[in-house]
Amino acid sequence: MNIVMIGSGNVATVLGRKFTAAGHKIVQVISRNASAATELAYEWDTESSNYFSVINKNADVYIVAVSDNALQELVHDLKLPGKIVAHTAGSVPKEILKNVTGHYGVFYPLQSIRKDITRLPDIPIFFEGSDDRTSITLKKLAQSISFKQPVFASSEDRMKLHVAAVIVSNFTNHLYALAEQYCKKEGIDFHQLLPLIEETVQRLKTDSPAGTLTGPAIRDDQPTIQKHLELLKDYPHLQKVYQLLTESILQTK
Amino acid sequence: MNIVMIGSGNVATVLGRKFTAAGHKIVQVISRNASAATELAYEWDTESSNYFSVINKNADVYIVAVSDNALQELVHDLKLPGKIVAHTAGSVPKEILKNVTGHYGVFYPLQSIRKDITRLPDIPIFFEGSDDRTSITLKKLAQSISFKQPVFASSEDRMKLHVAAVIVSNFTNHLYALAEQYCKKEGIDFHQLLPLIEETVQRLKTDSPAGTLTGPAIRDDQPTIQKHLELLKDYPHLQKVYQLLTESILQTK
Repeated sequence: MNIVMIGSGNVATVLGRKFTAAGHKIVQVISRNASAATELAYEWDTESSNYFSVINKNADVYIVAVSDNALQELVHDLKLPGKIVAHTAGSVPKEILKNVTGHYGVFYPLQSIRKDITRLPDIPIFFEGSDDRTSITLKKLAQSISFKQPVFASSEDRMKLHVAAVIVSNFTNHLYALAEQYCKKEGIDFHQLLPLIEETVQRLKTDSPAGTLTGPAIRDDQPTIQKHLELLKDYPHLQKVYQLLTESILQTK
Repeated sequence: MNIVMIGSGNVATVLGRKFTAAGHKIVQVISRNASAATELAYEWDTESSNYFSVINKNADVYIVAVSDNALQELVHDLKLPGKIVAHTAGSVPKEILKNVTGHYGVFYPLQSIRKDITRLPDIPIFFEGSDDRTSITLKKLAQSISFKQPVFASSEDRMKLHVAAVIVSNFTNHLYALAEQYCKKEGIDFHQLLPLIEETVQRLKTDSPAGTLTGPAIRDDQPTIQKHLELLKDYPHLQKVYQLLTESILQTK
């Protein structure tokens, strides 16, 4: 397919790389950030612009991969009647695009996406379209870039997936970051924890996490919990997180 | 080596299985829980007892894999002069064993261990001994059951590792459990999040988690954060966790 990529951030960059690797052609990159757009256009051997007025009107699909705020604004300027246009936001209804075209939809990558990471992870896509033509095209595009079968998801379900994704990815990554910082300051190698972290995730494939909790909180082992809080006394921020999640585990026992 | 296993819980069971698989012989299982001890003794084709008075005095190593509370109590009854005795607790100094024997130490498995999971994960061992003979023996025993090189860790470092382990394993697993519960109630398949969870962990091998955070909190994307809190309004507990970890990310930006 011939694709116009609107946006030049993490999602635009990584999706664009996936499209290119799958044999699609990015025919244009449009972004307010002219230098980022130029850089991507160079990478994909295509043209770029920071004006919507020069948008290529002959592409098969237009992917709008911009921040939620930018999305709110650009829908007023973007007119692509008859064209298939999809945004990539987790928590924005597809209808935001309804004045842009009669064939609008969503192409939501459920993955933590950063352009500075060279290895491209597999990206499960959740799609929806305003009509069959849009849905079928977005599904085909998704199939071409992911090992996972694309899943149709309504705007409501997609928002719920997004909340859950924040919890299982952003929040856990934040806990890793807090633990890493603690280890560094205490002269411990954070990487020694990797087998434990990997096992915790491996187990999700076969067991419900609700049934596999170990550690002092689920045992209500107060002496150990108190020792740990004492060890964290120079880390008031981490101590608060420790306390809250321990209470949370105790409450859900 | 000939090993006496004291304890019959998750750690005793899984370490015992690792020892047996590596060609060591469990010569006796001792536990207050007589039925659990009998079951393990049957599995390992050995004898069991719930009395310390009949403890086998001819083993090479005695592993005390019991709860921290039970450990506090049993050190008064256990006398094994000249024998190598090690406990498995993350947050208890090795000196708790000093009236049991002159050769005491710690054999700490840094892993989330549950006996009901049939697949045995690799278990990195952190050891320390009161003297060279003890340290060398515990190191050898550790080498025989793990792919990872055993690491010498002082009681202080081990406690710090234990705190970090709680943060990266127990707390993340709790977040998975909360997300799973939310998905179930909302009719979403939690397993659709697995590629995202795996990618978040994969990334730890090459990148510091402090530098790879994505999502609404790190972008300070308040409209999305507010939408998510609204979506969680029927889950006050999860909503509180969402709010706290979002604030925590904002504070560490």
